[in-house]
Amino acid sequence: MSRFMGARYSMFDAYTPGEQPQDRRYIKLNTNESPYPPSPKVRQALNADEVEALRLYPDPECGALRASMAAQLGLDENQLLCGNGSDELLSFAFMAWGSRGAAFADVTYGLYRVLADLHQVKVTNVPLRDGFALDDRDYLGLNRLIVIANPNAPTGRILCLDEIETILKTNPKNLVVIDEAYIDFGGESAMGLIGGYDNLLVVCTYSKSRSMAGARLGFAMGAKAVIDDLVKIKYATNPYNVNALTAAAGLAALHEPGYYRENCRQIQETRRWTTEALTDLGFRVVPSATNVIFVTTDRIGGSELYQGLKQRKILIRHFDIPAIRQYNRITIGTRRQMELLVETIDRMLGDADDGAGPGIAASPDGEEQL
Amino acid sequence: MSRFMGARYSMFDAYTPGEQPQDRRYIKLNTNESPYPPSPKVRQALNADEVEALRLYPDPECGALRASMAAQLGLDENQLLCGNGSDELLSFAFMAWGSRGAAFADVTYGLYRVLADLHQVKVTNVPLRDGFALDDRDYLGLNRLIVIANPNAPTGRILCLDEIETILKTNPKNLVVIDEAYIDFGGESAMGLIGGYDNLLVVCTYSKSRSMAGARLGFAMGAKAVIDDLVKIKYATNPYNVNALTAAAGLAALHEPGYYRENCRQIQETRRWTTEALTDLGFRVVPSATNVIFVTTDRIGGSELYQGLKQRKILIRHFDIPAIRQYNRITIGTRRQMELLVETIDRMLGDADDGAGPGIAASPDGEEQL
Repeated sequence: MSRFMGARYSMFDAYTPGEQPQDRRYIKLNTNESPYPPSPKVRQALNADEVEALRLYPDPECGALRASMAAQLGLDENQLLCGNGSDELLSFAFMAWGSRGAAFADVTYGLYRVLADLHQVKVTNVPLRDGFALDDRDYLGLNRLIVIANPNAPTGRILCLDEIETILKTNPKNLVVIDEAYIDFGGESAMGLIGGYDNLLVVCTYSKSRSMAGARLGFAMGAKAVIDDLVKIKYATNPYNVNALTAAAGLAALHEPGYYRENCRQIQETRRWTTEALTDLGFRVVPSATNVIFVTTDRIGGSELYQGLKQRKILIRHFDIPAIRQYNRITIGTRRQMELLVETIDRMLGDADDGAGPGIAASPDGEEQL
Repeated sequence: MSRFMGARYSMFDAYTPGEQPQDRRYIKLNTNESPYPPSPKVRQALNADEVEALRLYPDPECGALRASMAAQLGLDENQLLCGNGSDELLSFAFMAWGSRGAAFADVTYGLYRVLADLHQVKVTNVPLRDGFALDDRDYLGLNRLIVIANPNAPTGRILCLDEIETILKTNPKNLVVIDEAYIDFGGESAMGLIGGYDNLLVVCTYSKSRSMAGARLGFAMGAKAVIDDLVKIKYATNPYNVNALTAAAGLAALHEPGYYRENCRQIQETRRWTTEALTDLGFRVVPSATNVIFVTTDRIGGSELYQGLKQRKILIRHFDIPAIRQYNRITIGTRRQMELLVETIDRMLGDADDGAGPGIAASPDGEEQL
């Protein structure tokens, strides 16, 4: 940090993203990416014309993309905003609506706390219930910005729509942000409630089910007035926030919903298989509605499992946080990748039981915050 | 705006970007884009492999791009940060270093004021001198964040390196940000001063000379500690701020510097030709070191010229601000585009002199802030 940095920004800890090794020698099950590539039309969309047009600024309104998205979702265009990933939209939400503070789960997407600190939003931690369950009763009448990852990360637990509606009804004076990054892997979206509640924002991403983490595209849905708030902040920070290539790729992806539905179905099936296989090895697997599973076992420590797999070129994610230190988060890859994972863990545990394993260090190296 | 919007964000005016008509029926000389497409290697870079890899998050450190950039610029990698356009990096700068206020020219890039308002940074306006000249004597010992577009927008005037060095020397306690969006069209970059001054940040963009406005790529250069400040804010707002396609395109563009140098040479030549042609028509043209010219004439009002050209499918940019209301900013396009512009203006002025022109309204419709 320089000697010029303002006090306000000196104090907080920034977010640490999951490891992104650039050599691609790992089976990468640590950052919740899809194991499947974008759909064929995305490739076609990024053609010579699109590259030639890069000399021009992108449409700051993402008009074509938003029109197509709105038609597909049954929304008005002015109920939609696109962002440079959903992270950017979440940042705007904390700015716009955080003046009375924000409440979110004590174990959830780690960026929420970083954004709150950055924007000087006071945080109320809402402890998860037993088994990492979200409980709507913990969010009634809080009178401050509420942010819920639904399904929750990294645990995979989910609230049903009735529960979300209860939260919306008892919080008429503040925004309720439902972060649906993982909704396509097993939940029901709250977007149907937008017409009925002017205090709801639903945030989605192309990074998971839509196989475009590299393109950075998120979108937010809400009542027009709520979207207008975010639009204002967008035009005050980065008017051209979504680049032209990403907008073109996003538009193309909209034309092949069947492709992405089938990927989600595959991932659900692989999740089921992996859950059973790890349970057979003595793991407890938190019920998941996402493309990740959150797992623990008495047979090996959380950090040891992470380190041991990393030595064997498989990356999963361990969080060095007391409440979940015995757990690891594993992204669901292809069936073949998960078979390799299970075989590798089985061998590791066998070695460990024999006391003949390689020296698995429990050092915190490579471990991360949520 | 919704009833939930915090007071802090309710009060300011957001930035209004230049018109971006999506129908492409205009000769577009209003937003300072290059008339030339990205280089051939950029097309090759956006290939099937790159699209397939979109399923993965981009490298949050932009490692490959930054390494290549650093080698080309003769900097260390840790003296460089890439952003989602230079607008994002400017926003980070106001956050990091604006706590004692910021000073910038009264006529300059309009986003500075918007960013200052957004981040609650107190603004000191520094009036330009006669003929819109920047003057280093106006920036000595200001003891607050200084932001200078050099060359300046929308006027095209420039400070030389000696003058910038004087500003750096007399402001040892605050950052001096030199926004070099237009530097490749005729100025000398201040990046050579980075080694000597720990209070300098130089911000550049791929949007102008590098023909990639649509891709959103900017970069900042400064001492490691200064870059570290911005890195911290980046990881607290949007860890994956630069998408993979843009990083790949930016890397490819680095391999063809000759292509971009030749484009800049062409634009300088066309700027010279256009300046002479408009001078012949009775315009005063502010000396420009950029890819824009800032022009006025007694023969027609600033707003009338803008409106009249728009009716004739040529977009230039008019700012409805008292000090520059009689001026228009014209982006330098291809020689052919500029010939059409000059012919059209010549005909318009002839019609106006005859009193036989079409009804050119002087309405503020379509006019914009800086």
